[in-house]
Amino acid sequence: MTPYTAKQQAKRQITLVEVGPRDGLQSEPDVLPTETKVELIGRLVAAGLRRIEVASFVHPKLVPQMADAEAVMAALPRVPNVQYIGLVLNRKGFDRARAAGCTEIGMVTAATDRFAQRNQGASVEETIRAWEEIAPLAHAASIRAQVTVSVAFGCPFEGEVAPDRVVEIVRRLARSNPLEIALADTIGVAVPTQVTALIEAVRAEIPHIPLRCHFHNTRNTAVANAFAAVMAGVDTLDASVGGVGGCPFAPNATGNVATEDLVYMLSRSGFETGIDLDRLIDTAHWLQSKRGKPVPSMVSKAGSFPKHV
Amino acid sequence: MTPYTAKQQAKRQITLVEVGPRDGLQSEPDVLPTETKVELIGRLVAAGLRRIEVASFVHPKLVPQMADAEAVMAALPRVPNVQYIGLVLNRKGFDRARAAGCTEIGMVTAATDRFAQRNQGASVEETIRAWEEIAPLAHAASIRAQVTVSVAFGCPFEGEVAPDRVVEIVRRLARSNPLEIALADTIGVAVPTQVTALIEAVRAEIPHIPLRCHFHNTRNTAVANAFAAVMAGVDTLDASVGGVGGCPFAPNATGNVATEDLVYMLSRSGFETGIDLDRLIDTAHWLQSKRGKPVPSMVSKAGSFPKHV
Repeated sequence: MTPYTAKQQAKRQITLVEVGPRDGLQSEPDVLPTETKVELIGRLVAAGLRRIEVASFVHPKLVPQMADAEAVMAALPRVPNVQYIGLVLNRKGFDRARAAGCTEIGMVTAATDRFAQRNQGASVEETIRAWEEIAPLAHAASIRAQVTVSVAFGCPFEGEVAPDRVVEIVRRLARSNPLEIALADTIGVAVPTQVTALIEAVRAEIPHIPLRCHFHNTRNTAVANAFAAVMAGVDTLDASVGGVGGCPFAPNATGNVATEDLVYMLSRSGFETGIDLDRLIDTAHWLQSKRGKPVPSMVSKAGSFPKHV
Repeated sequence: MTPYTAKQQAKRQITLVEVGPRDGLQSEPDVLPTETKVELIGRLVAAGLRRIEVASFVHPKLVPQMADAEAVMAALPRVPNVQYIGLVLNRKGFDRARAAGCTEIGMVTAATDRFAQRNQGASVEETIRAWEEIAPLAHAASIRAQVTVSVAFGCPFEGEVAPDRVVEIVRRLARSNPLEIALADTIGVAVPTQVTALIEAVRAEIPHIPLRCHFHNTRNTAVANAFAAVMAGVDTLDASVGGVGGCPFAPNATGNVATEDLVYMLSRSGFETGIDLDRLIDTAHWLQSKRGKPVPSMVSKAGSFPKHV
């Protein structure tokens, strides 16, 4: 029990979307065996995660790490209230994700054309049209459908991104009734004031659509940005167990913010995540052993606080 | 020029106190040569740092890394408006720091007796009395004198620290007119809500004394805590170039928050630090080469943003 509890706001629920098994592992040089992925996802469910991005339904030649998407889905036990999310970029991917039994799909656009071209081989307009094609199909199939705006806080090719550009894109995306729209700091350049400002600008445009945020810790700002997003009213954040998933545009740098680092900050701040931090840290250590090299998360090294003192 | 500038508050000056040459290097297993320390401090001054903790005037048997305190001070060029800070724990240390020409001294107490005993070999009461003895001597000698409360946000031996305990200590410290009082998260357990709450509690007790904060990134919360402190009105933060300075109570974990990581966050948030980020990153890379192993900072790996795109 922290002595600060009395000063904090009443316990608010923050949902963490675990992206390690897809976004995290996809950036790893080595491919983990299917059974290791399935065990990882099972451990995450046991730790309390309820939304997990488990596979990418893109062409296996483009992302060999995700070639076993169907096999992963087939091996996963269905658990009530647990959503297995598949990344989908086009109609073919959606058909595969539906056939595999995904209960939620995530699609992706970008705030700049140069990033969209490099990352998805399509213009922003083309990626938005893919979303507009697939969202109604997902709704008709009772599959939850959400969409992410990459490089919303800055682009490695175009530099600063104007908030108005992001607002314009989310306006289009919102017309197809997403479960939520995510603002992604894909290269880890955002700072808290920017997070607050962009959330306010986007929410003014689409007050009826929930927002999610996806932060990278590339420049050590991810936890600060996550806190700013939560204080600005965002209830859902992406994170990756162990912080796995480097940033291909900054080779030696950290990528995804670690799930356990966010859980530590949120729990000790008086928010409820429904996640068992000790089990999550155990999972990060287990993943470290399977991966054969350290994970970048910090709470997995330092441990929680307070311990039994 | 960030597109968020217009939404930000007017440029506010935040002062970073560079603690790398003392607090940082003191925790390193290897001892850097005096000339390397002097070059490091010169590079920090050239990057824009104006308050630098350069040496510890404690017994060389206790801290062999700082045995050359007088030699470092003797070799440093005096620069207008640059304060060279000496850590001082007792009268003998103060006499040495004064003789060496320190323009500012930093003293230390703790929020718990068990930490004070382990860290300084004295009770909290004894460390406060040392401050009460030395502060008037410093004032009489026109030496700036400030004091830090260690483990103000949590203790590795006693666990949670009640804010009332910190308030009680700062009330005593404030009577001897410190330049400022620092609240230190010595083991890196704080979260932003706690930072805000403790600053408010302390400020209510001593509204006339400036506050400084000292954060460790052990659990990835240091940048978030720094932002919270700044938003709560704190104008001065400690930081260590490269993030050097491990945490002896969490062997594999990160310690001091990196100066360049704070400069990145603060500058991009629209605050003025007076520090040249590129020169500071160069200094972190230089220190890395002298140290022979990577520094923990993140901005030194990822670089600033936006670059010339």
